[in-house]
Amino acid sequence: MKEMKNNPVCKLFGTELPIVCGGMAWCSGWRLAAAVSRAGALGVIGSGSMDAGLLREHIRRCREATDKPFGVNVPLQAPHVERIIDVVTEERVGAVITSAGNPALYTQRLHEAGCKVAHVVADSRSARKCAEAGVDAVIAEGFEAGGHNGRQETATLVLVPIVRRAIDLPLIAAGGIATGEGMLAALALGADGVQIGTRFVMTDESSAGDAFKRLCLTLGEGDTMLALKRLSPTRLVKNEFYRMMDEAEQRGATAGQLEQMIGRGRAKRGMFDGDIVMGELEIGQAVTLVRSIQPAGEVVGQIIGEFDRALERLCERTM
Amino acid sequence: MKEMKNNPVCKLFGTELPIVCGGMAWCSGWRLAAAVSRAGALGVIGSGSMDAGLLREHIRRCREATDKPFGVNVPLQAPHVERIIDVVTEERVGAVITSAGNPALYTQRLHEAGCKVAHVVADSRSARKCAEAGVDAVIAEGFEAGGHNGRQETATLVLVPIVRRAIDLPLIAAGGIATGEGMLAALALGADGVQIGTRFVMTDESSAGDAFKRLCLTLGEGDTMLALKRLSPTRLVKNEFYRMMDEAEQRGATAGQLEQMIGRGRAKRGMFDGDIVMGELEIGQAVTLVRSIQPAGEVVGQIIGEFDRALERLCERTM
Repeated sequence: MKEMKNNPVCKLFGTELPIVCGGMAWCSGWRLAAAVSRAGALGVIGSGSMDAGLLREHIRRCREATDKPFGVNVPLQAPHVERIIDVVTEERVGAVITSAGNPALYTQRLHEAGCKVAHVVADSRSARKCAEAGVDAVIAEGFEAGGHNGRQETATLVLVPIVRRAIDLPLIAAGGIATGEGMLAALALGADGVQIGTRFVMTDESSAGDAFKRLCLTLGEGDTMLALKRLSPTRLVKNEFYRMMDEAEQRGATAGQLEQMIGRGRAKRGMFDGDIVMGELEIGQAVTLVRSIQPAGEVVGQIIGEFDRALERLCERTM
Repeated sequence: MKEMKNNPVCKLFGTELPIVCGGMAWCSGWRLAAAVSRAGALGVIGSGSMDAGLLREHIRRCREATDKPFGVNVPLQAPHVERIIDVVTEERVGAVITSAGNPALYTQRLHEAGCKVAHVVADSRSARKCAEAGVDAVIAEGFEAGGHNGRQETATLVLVPIVRRAIDLPLIAAGGIATGEGMLAALALGADGVQIGTRFVMTDESSAGDAFKRLCLTLGEGDTMLALKRLSPTRLVKNEFYRMMDEAEQRGATAGQLEQMIGRGRAKRGMFDGDIVMGELEIGQAVTLVRSIQPAGEVVGQIIGEFDRALERLCERTM
């Protein structure tokens, strides 16, 4: 891949590559973020599974581990979001990825602290709201993605071009992208860069539990499903916990009953502690394309290698 | 686009372009097939809404209208499939697209009649079965596609590379592709060509009812949904008929009850007769990318123009 200094995503975040690592709860600590950033992409700490104090520690450790730019993901529906925003502004984190909420809420405050802001959307209407809110980049995440997901179930192949038509901001495609071929497809659709989650869950530096990582190596097509549609649609591995929730939904359980069944700590139990039977396991459809656990820096290098070869093949065949 | 004579899909079907038009029940008669074939792609007659006599008439009319290659789509679960196979073999149709059934059933008979056979799959296991059955090409159709769909809900962005890894046959991507950018993305993922349905429903030559075509122009993200999961998953417009079926499924209706509610002629009523309220309307997620009704030949030309410009942009930005 040639120098991408003119790429809008690289320019925005100050990275060499237009690749953002998903800031995934229970998986994206400072080790993963630093490893991705050292490789030239944007590493992102996932604050979704941290309190403010722990987040501050991860930010400081990441800074010690690399002088490359990195970011923090902030789910805006978190009860302690104000404290999280305090930490990222006090620490003057270069890039903040906000999700699951209104982009108008904190963008100005983040800008005043010198943070660049990208917001995750699953439809073009929300993308337009991002532009109105002054967000710097939009991450369009499709149905394929692991974890929290949109209600409209628009897949990345359709979502990216429809968001591209809606806004002029730097556009990052997410959902279903785990390889250089997927990255090339995203750029063909009009994206400027990609956010990759699933492939980075399956790295040495990810803090996902070993049992979860090993399970991921065995997952094929159809082994994840968009679940919990009565609460907040979430792509999960179809384990016993998924089946218990699916049966309850089929039986007509209310949102309150479903929340009670999930209880507290279900995602930690699954993704961090490695209870692959009764824990909540969030991973994307692209898991079936990833068949090894590697160092994150090696993964970045492989994606770029795959991208270059795929582009060469495409040009040979068609130009 | 340069000459694509070395493209495996063009070589197989004898077309100038690696584009196949979906053979869509109630939409794909001889007029649409002939218009697409005249433009250099593969026009396909949809036998799913025809009896054997009507299919023969459409094949003969298509042949009168163009000397370019065209095909017939044959859903293998149709009760009169034997008669349909008789017609396509007797008429020695160049290309037969089989779907919704076992590719081993008729491939040999079709080959003996000189037909090339492509089979539609929604997972890599079925793709391997196609290779074992001696099929000539595989159409990998993702979750985004209109009408009948796979149970695993794998989106095209993930399905195409996983099928590409599974088989060496010519590979045609389908589902969510309506533009040249989408075609370029599919080729980036390793497909040799694309099948496009939704965009051709919305052409002058499509036999879809005018009210249905006009409705399609207004559909946005989230206006279609994968429905009828207890029978056979089918992507439908979310009209009153959809809502009636969805409520019945939520209430726990049995497959038999659901079938009774659909009754006979529901798809004709929607797509052909244009009852957009209580008819069954099959269309893909990509409908939101199509904002005009045009002649089919013009659509083919536009797709190629979009493809060429997108490829040029991609190469400028990345090489």
